[in-house]
Amino acid sequence: MIYEDYYIFTPGPVKMSEEIMEVGAKQTPYFRNCEFSDVTFACEKGLLEMVNAPEGSKVIFLTASGTAGMESVVMNLLNKDDNALVVHGGGFGGRFVEICKTHDIVHTDFKVTNTNLSDIETLAPKENYSSLIVNAHETSVGHLYDLNAMGAYAKKNNLLYIVDAISMLVTDPLDMQESAIDVVIASSQKGLALPPGLTMVVLTPRALEKVQDVKSLYFNFKDYLNNGERGQTPYTPAVTIMLQLEARLAQIKRRGGVEQSIRSAKEIAEYFRENIKTLPLKAYTPFMPNAMTTLTPTDGKAAMDIVNDLEDKYKVMVCPNGGEQRDLIFRVSHMGDMTKAYTDVLIDALHDYYQVDRV
Amino acid sequence: MIYEDYYIFTPGPVKMSEEIMEVGAKQTPYFRNCEFSDVTFACEKGLLEMVNAPEGSKVIFLTASGTAGMESVVMNLLNKDDNALVVHGGGFGGRFVEICKTHDIVHTDFKVTNTNLSDIETLAPKENYSSLIVNAHETSVGHLYDLNAMGAYAKKNNLLYIVDAISMLVTDPLDMQESAIDVVIASSQKGLALPPGLTMVVLTPRALEKVQDVKSLYFNFKDYLNNGERGQTPYTPAVTIMLQLEARLAQIKRRGGVEQSIRSAKEIAEYFRENIKTLPLKAYTPFMPNAMTTLTPTDGKAAMDIVNDLEDKYKVMVCPNGGEQRDLIFRVSHMGDMTKAYTDVLIDALHDYYQVDRV
Repeated sequence: MIYEDYYIFTPGPVKMSEEIMEVGAKQTPYFRNCEFSDVTFACEKGLLEMVNAPEGSKVIFLTASGTAGMESVVMNLLNKDDNALVVHGGGFGGRFVEICKTHDIVHTDFKVTNTNLSDIETLAPKENYSSLIVNAHETSVGHLYDLNAMGAYAKKNNLLYIVDAISMLVTDPLDMQESAIDVVIASSQKGLALPPGLTMVVLTPRALEKVQDVKSLYFNFKDYLNNGERGQTPYTPAVTIMLQLEARLAQIKRRGGVEQSIRSAKEIAEYFRENIKTLPLKAYTPFMPNAMTTLTPTDGKAAMDIVNDLEDKYKVMVCPNGGEQRDLIFRVSHMGDMTKAYTDVLIDALHDYYQVDRV
Repeated sequence: MIYEDYYIFTPGPVKMSEEIMEVGAKQTPYFRNCEFSDVTFACEKGLLEMVNAPEGSKVIFLTASGTAGMESVVMNLLNKDDNALVVHGGGFGGRFVEICKTHDIVHTDFKVTNTNLSDIETLAPKENYSSLIVNAHETSVGHLYDLNAMGAYAKKNNLLYIVDAISMLVTDPLDMQESAIDVVIASSQKGLALPPGLTMVVLTPRALEKVQDVKSLYFNFKDYLNNGERGQTPYTPAVTIMLQLEARLAQIKRRGGVEQSIRSAKEIAEYFRENIKTLPLKAYTPFMPNAMTTLTPTDGKAAMDIVNDLEDKYKVMVCPNGGEQRDLIFRVSHMGDMTKAYTDVLIDALHDYYQVDRV
C-alpha cells in the first residue's frame, strides 16, 4: 500500500477518520432493497440540511468524479436557448468553460483574478444571461468567492445560479437559501473526507423545473429523480461510499453540526497561517477559504521543489500546482479529519526545512 | 451497517476477500504522482494479461458504474456511419439497444431467447453490419453466449466486436485473441469482487484506431488515453478501488492465475447445482455460466417469495428478477471469494426451506 505512513495535506483525497475507514473495510451489501433505500434517503436528508436547501429540493447521487457532476448539470439544465456567465478564476472555472463549449452552450468566459467578486454587479459583462456558473472555491489557486453577493446579482437578473461547492462544503459556510443558490455540486473526497468516486447534485424546485431530456443514459437526471423517489439509482451506486457518507453525515451531526465543522476548519487554518508567519512564504490571495492555504515562496525558492522536499525529507504531502504556477505556489489542505497536532507535523517540517526556530 | 451478518449470493456486489477489504480500510493516498501511476500501470498490465489482449492494447479506467463503460464505448467507437447488430437476450442487451437509440446509432435490436448463439451465422439478420455488440453473460437471466462462434462471425464479416464481460470475467473464460474480440468492458463489483464504482474498457489496436472525438468531457477516451500514457486519468480516479484492483490482480496471480479462478468458480457452481437436484427447482437455461445459477421453481412457488423467505428466515441473500420474471426465476451468484463451505449455507437453507433432507 502506497503512502500509508505519510501525512497528507493535499486537497483531495484528504484525511479520513477511523470511523469512516472502518465502514470501508466491510463487505458491500446488496442494494436493491428497502434497507439500502433508507441509506440513500438518510444521505439525501443530511445533505439537504447541511446546505439549507429549500423545501422540495432533491439530491442526485452519481457514481463518478466531481467533473461528471459539473458536466451533467450543464447537460441537464442548460440548452441552446441559454447564455451562461461562467466565472473563470482558475483551472476549475476553465473546466466549466470547456464543458459549455463541448455541449454547445452559449457562454461568456468571465476571466477574473484575485477578486472574491463581491462587486460582481460592476465587474460582470453587461449581457443578458440566463445562468451564472461558479466554483465557490477555485481549488486550483485556493480562492473563495462571495456567494451572497453573487446570489443577489443572480436573483436580481433572474439567473439560474449554479455553484460547484466540491472543495468547500463542510469547511466553509454554504447556505442555499441565504445565497439564493439553485444548484449545488458536491463530491465525496473533499470536505466530506470520503474516498473519491461519488458526486452529488442538489437541485432546488426551481432547478428541478429546468431538468430536460438529454442524449445520455448515465447522466439522465430525470431517470435519477424517478429512481430517487424510492431511494434508488438507475445503475449500481458506489455502495461503500454511500454507506460512508451516511456515517459521515451522522458523525458531523454528532460532533455539533456543520457549523462546528466549519469552526474547526477555520481554527486550524488560522492556526497554520499564524504559525508559519516567520517563514519566507506569503498568502497567494486575500480570499482564502478555511479549506486550504495557498502559499507563494518569497525567497526565490521554486514551489515545486518545496513540495518534493517536504515529501522526501518529512513524509509530508502538500499539493503542487500545474502549468505556469508550478514553481509559484503550493497548496495546503485543512479539509478532512484535521487536528492542530496533525497540522503541527507540517508546521514543524516547514521550520526545519527553512532552518528557522518555531516561535 | 446494513447486512453485515448476511450471506450474500447476489450477482454484484459479491463476497470480497479479507485482503481486499483491508485495503478499503486505509487512508486514500495522493494520486497525482509516480507512485500512483505505477498502480495504474500494474492494473493495466494485469487486466491485459487476464483477457489475453493483443500487443498494443490499452485499458481505460472510468470512475463510474458498468453502464458508463457500455455507453462510453458506443459514444467513442460508433458514429452515424455505423450499423450495429446488438444482441438482446435480456435486460442488459436491452440497455445496449437503449444506448444506441440515445446516441442515434443505426442498429438492429437482435432479440434472442435461450440460445448461446453458437449458430449466430444462421440466426443473425442478413444485413451489412459494422459492429457486433453483446453482453458475454446476460446477467439478467444468467445466460452465456458462445464468444468464439460470435468472434468467428464478426471476423468473417469484418465487424468491430464489442463484448461486455462485466459479470463473467474471472469466473468464465474470456480470451480476446482466441475470440477475436476488439473491445472488452469490465467492472469492479462482479467477478473481480471489489466495491462498485470502477469500470474498465480494454481496447485493442484495431479498436484504438476507431476512437473518435466526442461531445463529452467525462467520457472522452482520447483524453483518458493521453493521460494513460503516464499512468493517470483526466479526473480524480476511484483511488481506493484502483488500489484494491491492484491487490486483487496480484491475489489472482498468486492463487494460480485466472485459470485457477475459473476452475474454482466452475467447481463451486457444479457443487451447488448437484446439491440442490432433489429440490423443486430447475435450471432456467442450459447455457449457464460459472458466474451464476438461474433457477425456476417447479412446484408453483413464486420466485420472489423464495428470495424474501431466504433473506428473512436464513439471512441468505439471493437475487430476484424484475418485471414479468419476478415470480419466475431467481439468481444465485458464485462470483467473488466463494467456497463450498459458504455455499453450503445456501444449500442447507434451501433444503430446510423445502423440508427436504440433504442427500
